[in-house]
Amino acid sequence: MNLPLGYAYAATFAGIRQAEKDDLALIVSGLAANAAAVFTQNRVQAAPVRLSRRHLKLSKGLAGAILVNAGNANCATRTGDAVALASCKAAARLLKLPVVQVLPASTGVIGVELDSNKIAAALPRLVEGLHPDRFDDVAQAIMTTDLVPKTAFARAKLRRGTIQIAGMTKGSGMIQPLMATTLGFVMTDANIPGALLRPMLRRCAERSYNRMSVDGDTSTNDTLVLLANGASGVRPDPKEFAAVEEKIAEVMECLARAIARDGEGARKLVTIEVSGAPSNQAATRIARTIANSPLVKTAIAGSDPNWGRILMAAGNAGVAFDPAKTDVAMQGITVCRNGLAAPFSEEELKQKLEAAECGIRLTIRGKGTGRARFWTCDLTEGYIRINASYRT
Amino acid sequence: MNLPLGYAYAATFAGIRQAEKDDLALIVSGLAANAAAVFTQNRVQAAPVRLSRRHLKLSKGLAGAILVNAGNANCATRTGDAVALASCKAAARLLKLPVVQVLPASTGVIGVELDSNKIAAALPRLVEGLHPDRFDDVAQAIMTTDLVPKTAFARAKLRRGTIQIAGMTKGSGMIQPLMATTLGFVMTDANIPGALLRPMLRRCAERSYNRMSVDGDTSTNDTLVLLANGASGVRPDPKEFAAVEEKIAEVMECLARAIARDGEGARKLVTIEVSGAPSNQAATRIARTIANSPLVKTAIAGSDPNWGRILMAAGNAGVAFDPAKTDVAMQGITVCRNGLAAPFSEEELKQKLEAAECGIRLTIRGKGTGRARFWTCDLTEGYIRINASYRT
Repeated sequence: MNLPLGYAYAATFAGIRQAEKDDLALIVSGLAANAAAVFTQNRVQAAPVRLSRRHLKLSKGLAGAILVNAGNANCATRTGDAVALASCKAAARLLKLPVVQVLPASTGVIGVELDSNKIAAALPRLVEGLHPDRFDDVAQAIMTTDLVPKTAFARAKLRRGTIQIAGMTKGSGMIQPLMATTLGFVMTDANIPGALLRPMLRRCAERSYNRMSVDGDTSTNDTLVLLANGASGVRPDPKEFAAVEEKIAEVMECLARAIARDGEGARKLVTIEVSGAPSNQAATRIARTIANSPLVKTAIAGSDPNWGRILMAAGNAGVAFDPAKTDVAMQGITVCRNGLAAPFSEEELKQKLEAAECGIRLTIRGKGTGRARFWTCDLTEGYIRINASYRT
Repeated sequence: MNLPLGYAYAATFAGIRQAEKDDLALIVSGLAANAAAVFTQNRVQAAPVRLSRRHLKLSKGLAGAILVNAGNANCATRTGDAVALASCKAAARLLKLPVVQVLPASTGVIGVELDSNKIAAALPRLVEGLHPDRFDDVAQAIMTTDLVPKTAFARAKLRRGTIQIAGMTKGSGMIQPLMATTLGFVMTDANIPGALLRPMLRRCAERSYNRMSVDGDTSTNDTLVLLANGASGVRPDPKEFAAVEEKIAEVMECLARAIARDGEGARKLVTIEVSGAPSNQAATRIARTIANSPLVKTAIAGSDPNWGRILMAAGNAGVAFDPAKTDVAMQGITVCRNGLAAPFSEEELKQKLEAAECGIRLTIRGKGTGRARFWTCDLTEGYIRINASYRT
């Protein structure tokens, strides 16, 4: 694992969450990085989401640091905006950065005031602890009920040299069972102009984070940031940007899959592929509807080759297609052909569905060329246990 | 309980389902009834849905009988259309009705051929057994994994006499865990012209069946039929139609609530009320999104006054509203005011949420006047157990 050049990381326990486990972290770029971000589309947005959006605008897309806490979403709080701003100001002062170059992010409980004094008190030792190798510490600190930290890496050899990409994310955890949040931070040392970085992030997010679902609920805090600080000294040739984007997308897909795999209560990663739809958008709608169907997700949990539920879910996507020209395969075995039962060994398929990774493929045969891939997880009693337990 | 005049009912075990329990039923009107029906909006539709729609069109909205089976959805089957038609023909012959006046409906497993010989063999004794008092037998026969039969009744005293309304429904059952189906049959002896009956059914369905969700999945077989045979001899005055519609809507609301209450694994009926939205449609979208949120439904299961999840779900409805002007109440207790935590006793509210009926009210304070009411149920481990168990 080679980390991108020019970044430093730190994490500490600031007392925000109850368990004594790092809950405040910094990602710092020595050179101001070109930064792009996408945020939750929920109408209810946390204070750090609003402030990050504002800072990116005022800094004209430059960022020097990401300040992130777990244990409190700083959402629906009276003092939320003030706390987020005060924390960024304190970090900026210590890091000698303009405050608009600090991006805040939070995950955790909603509706509980976040104490800015705890952050102010922890910041000096956090800044003191910054080190290029402490990447994993940050990946750990942003976890809530995630069972595993989630990181992904890539490199690309370009004509002018090698660039590195490193990403981390957290997801589907609850600090108290209030709501999951996805945070994702992807750093590269390539030199990518802001005007290219922003559409690049949008396209990469579209095929990774936006193609993944655990329970269909969108958090108030979702934040995905892409930083490109140019510390490698390598600026891709115009012809090389597509290859760089592909690498960044692969890192984000890897992170998105890791979230689905670690979904609350999940035992299986489910990959859904749809082809032959009227458009890619229509294929995505079908795939998303299958991914969000509790009946499909419980069938996968039960290793049940229940293709009727898959067809039913596809039919609910609001997309025009002919069921009589539709095939369904599970784990590569065709279970439905032309909308009717295909002959297959239930016993064999049931065993194949016990695997940690399950594939569902829905093929519409006709003139359509729309395709989509989507990730989700199975729905088990564990999900209910995690989310129905009373907060104590 | 006074049943509407002019209807007869029968049920028998035809061997369609494995358990020896009635699985074939008839509802017959002595006089051809004006009939209206709404069907599933799923793109994948079962053979009986297609044939009922066709029959209603060809009969110009007259129906003499409903032939319904449980244990097999007759969906995604090679012989489905032929079996549905042959069954209707056999029933029509015995009942001396035009075949287009017989409406078929099915619920049960998908993708398994339905044997028309079993239906043909059972029909003579079914017709023989027709009796005005056997209403409950039909309500029992259409159950799959429903825990209780679901019926509702109403009467209205009009100027020219009294009319009766009786409805039955089934819902959220699985015969084998393939997919839930909602069937609803509502009979009245009022004389209501077809041209009035059809829009009346659409409006009534809109505020009852279309405002209810167990898991957000729409079956391939959903069918709701309203019959008005005029056997009471009472034709409502033009001014009385609104009152009659209100009674029919109340019966359907009662049936829809009964389905939500008996949702798979459910222990609680949840009523969601939204007001102050830009329009009734927007209010319905918000209410539906709250009702379909697994995080809200598990919070209710855990008696957790988790208003953050409710606000989060509302924010995902794709409706513009100001969270800072939004209040949330649970069981009549305000838990969120102006998008912020309101003071309340968690212990007291937790106890109130242990009730079998839970209410969520979301109020947007502003210029909007859109309102909606929606029913759902909590999401428990029972739902997973029912749907993740392998078919045997």
